Amino acid sequence: MRDIYHDRLDHLVDRLVTMCQLAADAMRDATAALMTCDLTAAERVIADDRVVDMARSTCESDAHLLLALQAPVAGDLRLVIMAMHAADSLERMGDLAEHVAETVRRRYPRQVLPATLRPRFAAMGGIAVTLAENAATALRTRDPAILAAADEADGELNDLHRSLFAILEYQDWAYGAGAAVDAAQLSQCYERFGDHAVSIARRATFVATGTMTREAS
Amino acid sequence: MRDIYHDRLDHLVDRLVTMCQLAADAMRDATAALMTCDLTAAERVIADDRVVDMARSTCESDAHLLLALQAPVAGDLRLVIMAMHAADSLERMGDLAEHVAETVRRRYPRQVLPATLRPRFAAMGGIAVTLAENAATALRTRDPAILAAADEADGELNDLHRSLFAILEYQDWAYGAGAAVDAAQLSQCYERFGDHAVSIARRATFVATGTMTREAS
Repeated sequence: MRDIYHDRLDHLVDRLVTMCQLAADAMRDATAALMTCDLTAAERVIADDRVVDMARSTCESDAHLLLALQAPVAGDLRLVIMAMHAADSLERMGDLAEHVAETVRRRYPRQVLPATLRPRFAAMGGIAVTLAENAATALRTRDPAILAAADEADGELNDLHRSLFAILEYQDWAYGAGAAVDAAQLSQCYERFGDHAVSIARRATFVATGTMTREAS
Repeated sequence: MRDIYHDRLDHLVDRLVTMCQLAADAMRDATAALMTCDLTAAERVIADDRVVDMARSTCESDAHLLLALQAPVAGDLRLVIMAMHAADSLERMGDLAEHVAETVRRRYPRQVLPATLRPRFAAMGGIAVTLAENAATALRTRDPAILAAADEADGELNDLHRSLFAILEYQDWAYGAGAAVDAAQLSQCYERFGDHAVSIARRATFVATGTMTREAS
């Protein structure tokens, strides 16, 4: 039979998995709002970020309580430390999705992105959502194969981010400096969102193996 | 007499204070390189970031060992948890200074910023360095007054960051989309550097008071 201590550890992981899903949903909805210039959807993403922030705060309290009352060691200690880092990353991921939505709201009723850039951002959004879902799977399974898949997808996201700058710096860029700045900042939101998701998968794997692989810089 | 356990806790704080100083130096030198288009200085900042990364790794190991072997409680536990978060923030602060230096290197021998924007970025650099120094003082003293001062300085930094966008979006911006993107991204480096520094001061104060004030969003 499971004791209360192990139930609490499981509960902490469940909460992180839920937060991954919230972050994935937020980025999916923010990207959809960006594609369709949907103010209502953008405002919902912004309002819902409060839920992620509260979940993070609860995770942090739970982790502190576990450390204070149970003094976990070995794999359990690694799990609690991982949970604190993951909760931190997940709050940031929520903030990044919120930032995409805020950009939609700020430019409304104007489209943020010129039509030629939209497919690129739809692709980045898709990869970012997949990475948040990978993070949830890595938390549940701690399977190194998930981390490898996440690393590869994150590589694609980084390539999309980097190659955007060649477009923005091209002399024939016809949409003005403001639109270029918006595009660069949005792209960075997706790139950072992906980095945080991979960092969660990496730390989740570390709980299982006790070996921390190098973080992507 | 102090025992080994308390010596280790003190040592952890000393290490964080040293990291604050490294981050402050990195941002000061990166800003100087940005102002004077100094490739050698920029490359030194980039190379030195390795030192911050190693210090962070050591901090994290020290914190894990303290948790595993000493099972600290109450204020000592808060201190170890704070140290893990602070080490994380300090690594990011080093990365942000490195990013400023990388931009200098990428554009060399061209100046990254038009002359009219340089005083604004010199000011942002000055505030960012002060905030890293404030974080060191907060770690040493855990004095809420330091946090209040840091919050105020961070407000100025955020104002400088936000008001840049009005300049970049102004129709008469004459330096092209690429220069606008560079300026926006650099500005964000300073703004995020400041946020991390304030978050360290906030958590250091929390170690003393046990009460976490709301994080600036």
